[in-house]
Amino acid sequence: MDRDNFTMLTDFYEMTMANGFFNEGFKDRIVYFDMFFRTIPDGGGFAVMAGVEQMIEYMKSLRFTEDDIEYLRSKNMFSEGFLEYLRDFRFECDVWAVPEGTPVFPGEPLVTVRGPAIQAQFVETMILLTINYQTLIATKANRIARAAEGRAVMEFGARRAQGAYAAVYGARAAYIAGCAGTSNVLTDQKYGVPALGTMAHSWVQMFDSELEAFKAYARTYPDDTTLLIDTYNVLKSGLPNAIRTFDEVLKPMGKRPRGVRIDSGDITYLSKKCRAMLDEAGYPDCTIVASNSLDEYIIRDMLIQGARIDSFGVGERLITSRSNPVMGGVYKLSGVEDDNGNIIPKIKISENVAKITTPCFKQVYRLYDGATSKAIADVITLHDEKIDSSEPYEIFDPEFTWKRKRVTDFFARPLLKRMFRKGECVYDPPSIDVLREYCGMQVDGLWDELKRFENPHKYYVDLSEKLWKIKNEMIRMHTVE
Amino acid sequence: MDRDNFTMLTDFYEMTMANGFFNEGFKDRIVYFDMFFRTIPDGGGFAVMAGVEQMIEYMKSLRFTEDDIEYLRSKNMFSEGFLEYLRDFRFECDVWAVPEGTPVFPGEPLVTVRGPAIQAQFVETMILLTINYQTLIATKANRIARAAEGRAVMEFGARRAQGAYAAVYGARAAYIAGCAGTSNVLTDQKYGVPALGTMAHSWVQMFDSELEAFKAYARTYPDDTTLLIDTYNVLKSGLPNAIRTFDEVLKPMGKRPRGVRIDSGDITYLSKKCRAMLDEAGYPDCTIVASNSLDEYIIRDMLIQGARIDSFGVGERLITSRSNPVMGGVYKLSGVEDDNGNIIPKIKISENVAKITTPCFKQVYRLYDGATSKAIADVITLHDEKIDSSEPYEIFDPEFTWKRKRVTDFFARPLLKRMFRKGECVYDPPSIDVLREYCGMQVDGLWDELKRFENPHKYYVDLSEKLWKIKNEMIRMHTVE
Repeated sequence: MDRDNFTMLTDFYEMTMANGFFNEGFKDRIVYFDMFFRTIPDGGGFAVMAGVEQMIEYMKSLRFTEDDIEYLRSKNMFSEGFLEYLRDFRFECDVWAVPEGTPVFPGEPLVTVRGPAIQAQFVETMILLTINYQTLIATKANRIARAAEGRAVMEFGARRAQGAYAAVYGARAAYIAGCAGTSNVLTDQKYGVPALGTMAHSWVQMFDSELEAFKAYARTYPDDTTLLIDTYNVLKSGLPNAIRTFDEVLKPMGKRPRGVRIDSGDITYLSKKCRAMLDEAGYPDCTIVASNSLDEYIIRDMLIQGARIDSFGVGERLITSRSNPVMGGVYKLSGVEDDNGNIIPKIKISENVAKITTPCFKQVYRLYDGATSKAIADVITLHDEKIDSSEPYEIFDPEFTWKRKRVTDFFARPLLKRMFRKGECVYDPPSIDVLREYCGMQVDGLWDELKRFENPHKYYVDLSEKLWKIKNEMIRMHTVE
Repeated sequence: MDRDNFTMLTDFYEMTMANGFFNEGFKDRIVYFDMFFRTIPDGGGFAVMAGVEQMIEYMKSLRFTEDDIEYLRSKNMFSEGFLEYLRDFRFECDVWAVPEGTPVFPGEPLVTVRGPAIQAQFVETMILLTINYQTLIATKANRIARAAEGRAVMEFGARRAQGAYAAVYGARAAYIAGCAGTSNVLTDQKYGVPALGTMAHSWVQMFDSELEAFKAYARTYPDDTTLLIDTYNVLKSGLPNAIRTFDEVLKPMGKRPRGVRIDSGDITYLSKKCRAMLDEAGYPDCTIVASNSLDEYIIRDMLIQGARIDSFGVGERLITSRSNPVMGGVYKLSGVEDDNGNIIPKIKISENVAKITTPCFKQVYRLYDGATSKAIADVITLHDEKIDSSEPYEIFDPEFTWKRKRVTDFFARPLLKRMFRKGECVYDPPSIDVLREYCGMQVDGLWDELKRFENPHKYYVDLSEKLWKIKNEMIRMHTVE
């Protein structure tokens, strides 16, 4: 990927539509788009937003090179006026997004773009690509980190990631959502996600014996000796050789071992045996690291069965979200401004009720319980609506409107933050460690019922009375005609 | 991804091991590594090799910048001598690989690297990352293209791809393996994979009516009018408006429509109705394009039920290989040269028989039947072994050695081609269209029994007598001691 901008990473139809808008005189018509998703991966109770920083970088670097324009001209589909417009292209949209690390729910706008039709449409592919992937991985990583119940989870998946970008940004998203670090050097160098790693089986094979291999490693890294003990046989060879290495190399230097890693076999069983042998040998502080096709379900089972594991290395099932590798975010038109700046709401009707979009320029408020600070519900409102927390507020299910609840003693926070104002970035992305801490706090602020892997509670995402009325009026109009 | 090389996209343990090899004086020890996989995705009969060109680009651009070295120094883990070595790093390995588009099977080396221990080990992460992903997608795309039985399949998945790299290179791999094109503009610009696309639902919503939207599109693209007809109602609104557009805009210009696209609903049913209505209206040449969460199984079912579809747009289930999103390729040490240049074979033993590696510096021969030119079996040999096709050749199952077969009237072709000689690239990657044609021919050369989606025949991947003896002797030695 030898270019410094992803402008041309777009669907061809964004180009044909852009040219069409240009030719139809819609170039400067102001429109509104929302990005949202319909289903939480793995049947979970919430997703974790990620990828905003990369979306911002993309928008900042949007521009067409002469090569790009030459390529487009060669298609014989685009007008010269349009190509001229692209040559001077300057991003002019307003953009709002939910900050990274925030728990998010189906149907609520995660990104809203307001701007000239060509531009707001054009950025669709990369907004989806960027937010879909990182949100998918952040959601999965958060599940895995929660399954580990406070033990460190390291992201180890680069070799099985779906390409270089996934390796780097998947590791970034995993860290925001609760992983302790990564094996990926570039993600550390670029984002300061702590990178860790010790040895492969090939290190052990390269030496004439396992013991020799371990001793060489301990000599080189006496302060950070973690040995991979399953190349031949964990209990008969690997662990005894590890203990001998600790005794014969580290002890004389006054150093303590860091850990041993088990990458195959029945790890739950082996970990218990290893724990006993290490304790017996005087190394109760030597940690046990497990890896090998782990995910939240396997980690949960291991811990239920009493595995003595201090940290987990999780690879392919995290970095690809293997059990659910697609985040189905979509990007839909929600409004068009007329010549007087009035917003004409737009809706997409579908026989499948879940696929009907919510019209209008919107905001999302999260309502928190005043006593516990736990999140109660999200309410999607018109963008300029305010929720007054000094009064009781009635929320209701937008489908089953008789399901109503009066909320008192609460506070409300808007989730969509302004990222761009007329093409100028006005948001300073927080450091990754701040995002990680924020994510942890936000997830803590959800009720436990939402955190189950099976049958989680369904969080309320409601519409304000005003928005609900507009939407239902539009549905009626469309289905009557 | 704002750098022009992926040197730092590596697992941290490649760095710690490299530094360790350096300190142990193993820097110039010549070693052999193989990349191979153990399981064919989706239970299929074969995989399709892809990603070689990107692996070559990676190797060509390997180098450490001053920033990289500074970053590594900051870890306080690496010796100054090692950092000095990295500063002058020059890739010196010999590399062999199976060309892209070749059907490949479990257990056979797809890439072999020979070179100094540090270097041959270091490239592990990116070899795996690159070959795993593109091979996964080429394999999936080939399945989907075969299910379509000659109808065009367009890759439409960018927005759901796992990151930018996956979007671009997944589309490339899909084309090699038989897709007709992509929606991805950058993949067309970079690799000449034909990009195609017309309109989103938002185009239709942007206008005051569907008819107006269609007419505007047809005016702009009279030579390439494909209309998306499911924004409101396919049969009552979309198709009638499309036909009116063909009649009122295209016909007066003397133009014919290209097609209509259906992206939701019961597409099989709708396609039959649309076909009849289009024929009736005098547009038997107007094609019907289907999209919406398709894969090889759904396409097969649609065709069995008589869907009247001329081409398919396939998104998320192709670009992520959703039903099997991980290609489990591994990279294992197979030999080490002693001071006299003799190769000492290396093996990794495992209680899981399938995980035992095959030692030695190897070649893979594909044996073809002389009469039909169909592939009969692959034989893994020592690298310098020759298979003499003028004599009968006996192949045998490496596990059940009594399963033997004498092959006569055959020819044999080596699969591993030299890519690098002492760090110099000596391979000129073919154009993508040549690769696509080659892939088609190679897949044609497989028996139909291998091409089933369910219960495909297991293709023979055997070892030569010589290699089998070495491997078994080593297993015996390791398990006895």
